[in-house]
Amino acid sequence: MHLNTHLIHMPGNYLFAEIARRVSAYAPSAPRPLIRLGIGDVTQPLAPAITQAMAAASLEMGTPEGFHGYPPDQGYDFLRQAILDADYAPLGVQLALDDVFITDGAKTDTSALQELLAPDARIALTDPVYPVYVDSNAMAGRLGNYENDSWSRLATLPCNAENAFVPELPTEPVDMLYLCYPNNPTGTVLTRAQLKRFVDYALKTQTLILFDAAYKAYITDDAVPRSIYEIEGAEKIAIECCSFSKSAGFTGTRCAYTIIPQALTAQVDGQAVSLNALWRRRVASRQNGVSYPIQRAAAAALSPEGRAQVDAQVRGYMDNARQIVTALTGAGLQVFGGVHAPYVWLRIPGGQSSWDFFDRLLHEAQVVGTPGSGFGPSGEGYLRLTAFNTAEATREALARILAIL
Amino acid sequence: MHLNTHLIHMPGNYLFAEIARRVSAYAPSAPRPLIRLGIGDVTQPLAPAITQAMAAASLEMGTPEGFHGYPPDQGYDFLRQAILDADYAPLGVQLALDDVFITDGAKTDTSALQELLAPDARIALTDPVYPVYVDSNAMAGRLGNYENDSWSRLATLPCNAENAFVPELPTEPVDMLYLCYPNNPTGTVLTRAQLKRFVDYALKTQTLILFDAAYKAYITDDAVPRSIYEIEGAEKIAIECCSFSKSAGFTGTRCAYTIIPQALTAQVDGQAVSLNALWRRRVASRQNGVSYPIQRAAAAALSPEGRAQVDAQVRGYMDNARQIVTALTGAGLQVFGGVHAPYVWLRIPGGQSSWDFFDRLLHEAQVVGTPGSGFGPSGEGYLRLTAFNTAEATREALARILAIL
Repeated sequence: MHLNTHLIHMPGNYLFAEIARRVSAYAPSAPRPLIRLGIGDVTQPLAPAITQAMAAASLEMGTPEGFHGYPPDQGYDFLRQAILDADYAPLGVQLALDDVFITDGAKTDTSALQELLAPDARIALTDPVYPVYVDSNAMAGRLGNYENDSWSRLATLPCNAENAFVPELPTEPVDMLYLCYPNNPTGTVLTRAQLKRFVDYALKTQTLILFDAAYKAYITDDAVPRSIYEIEGAEKIAIECCSFSKSAGFTGTRCAYTIIPQALTAQVDGQAVSLNALWRRRVASRQNGVSYPIQRAAAAALSPEGRAQVDAQVRGYMDNARQIVTALTGAGLQVFGGVHAPYVWLRIPGGQSSWDFFDRLLHEAQVVGTPGSGFGPSGEGYLRLTAFNTAEATREALARILAIL
Repeated sequence: MHLNTHLIHMPGNYLFAEIARRVSAYAPSAPRPLIRLGIGDVTQPLAPAITQAMAAASLEMGTPEGFHGYPPDQGYDFLRQAILDADYAPLGVQLALDDVFITDGAKTDTSALQELLAPDARIALTDPVYPVYVDSNAMAGRLGNYENDSWSRLATLPCNAENAFVPELPTEPVDMLYLCYPNNPTGTVLTRAQLKRFVDYALKTQTLILFDAAYKAYITDDAVPRSIYEIEGAEKIAIECCSFSKSAGFTGTRCAYTIIPQALTAQVDGQAVSLNALWRRRVASRQNGVSYPIQRAAAAALSPEGRAQVDAQVRGYMDNARQIVTALTGAGLQVFGGVHAPYVWLRIPGGQSSWDFFDRLLHEAQVVGTPGSGFGPSGEGYLRLTAFNTAEATREALARILAIL
């Protein structure tokens, strides 16, 4: 059998698998319990409106009237309508039901949407970046060879303190550009004008934008765009991926959605090809949708009662983010993010490498962060801390970190 | 942007999407309610043990002690252990926890596992066949061009009444061979000796077998293998995909599992490469596992109480299958399957094409079947009927069918 050599030659482990490996190896000998500010997993229990809806739908599935077989490929209308009403109408963004695809996770879709592109399509990514965008394209053979920590066919747009984490436009033609704002891992955002520059570029060059808005619930200022469709013309050039994971605590519940507007087309042999129709064909052949009780739970998270409950959780996480920023800044450290995002991007003092500082934090402070270099070369010298732990654990972790600096 | 031309040039709709289109177009003008014996969707409500476990786990997610964040990539140990204990130990098949990957559906994995293979790997499929195997490989560009109803790079193994639905071995070298038994769509099975012939061939030629055992719960005779691992050596050459959809009514609940034994390796540049490790890498980068309440529900389906309940449902569906076989045979028609499978494969009388007979059944009997040619060229002249409707609806559908013949 001839295997996929791109998969065989993937460098190293998936970042968070490698962190889990190091943490498991150390944990048994740790002098006190570890505090995890590493992987972006939430800690607050699901809100009551959500669990009640999920439990009720579970029991409904046991009745002849309430049983649901295969879900619609693109998701139930009740959830798609709730998304349009709750997440887009307030922004003045008009979308149609058929623009919305329900999926079991933003990771699933942000890693799969590259299948819309030709095997030799060119990709541009900000650096540092969520490793899923890189890995999925690398496994598909699109990134060339991996040498000296970089891929031969990948265009990277560095983001660092020197450019205030605002990437430049690609300097070479690319087919798809991934943008994630509020950003994972840096926690920084783009203003409307900065995002418009990318949309205008994409429209002019016919570059598909994959906009990952998984952290939009953490935006605290209406001047920061929550959806790329707030920018004129974006519906003709951008796909948007969103998630209930961080807005409603669904990391263990699994529900997300992707928007592919019907206005988004590409010219192929003189014909306008609809990316929405292409993705619909792909979805129909490769999955069977999301569980009915889970879709009910997601809809409950968008109900007025559910929103009040999950918004309170988001505010709690943002209190943690503020706490992290204040404590570290107060100790003279340079930090970024944490204002419109649950991530704080710490510049490591003293010139230590990201993995060395990660190990030191683990072994001396018993705190788990995420090494910046795991997100790409421009992440070297940084560490990501998440605001998703409890207030108490966050406070204790900060005390431990400050004690070893 | 350069799009995936293989996706753009996919012929027609996904089979069941096309059927849904024809049914929706006709339904408003139908003189009586339609009876659906088409798509293989179950109709019995979820069993009480399952809904109770799912509802309890949903509420548990609302408590600080019971909240679960990201699930383990390969699934929770409690479910993987239950699968080994309930589905493999009784067959005398020894597997390890790490051989089991929990997934949101057998369709998801049977369509994704081709990513283990090189882009130009050769595929062999039985014909007729579940269209997902074809479509997923076609979208990946592995099947060449589609002309005159066939793919230029696909090896097909015809199954028809003339060869008693037992495929021949491939006559040209291939990298992967898909086998689904009990078979979808024909409802036929392979004996242990017939399956052994394929395993021996695969071991000798190093051809990966993807064995789809989604319908194993319907086997009523221990002489028919329920797992390919009942055949000696299969753990070195076969991946097995299973599902809770048809065994426990999970079509709308979404849970399945894939077995990749750690003994399954391929030689690449003189090294043994583990397919289990490759798939683990792929899974870690492309999804975030299955919802905790859903995995609890699946484990409940494997508990003694759950099994008793779901086995009774399976017996009910098999009563329907017997009813279909008996009625159609009694009317002088030739039928296959329906003994160890929930599908009956009807040879269409009078030389009508599959789609013509599908349309006639829809318009004259208001019964929905699935045209055999939708599953491949060798399905032409056949129609698939499912046993998944209620006993009453099945009886009524049979009366209607017999009335128009």
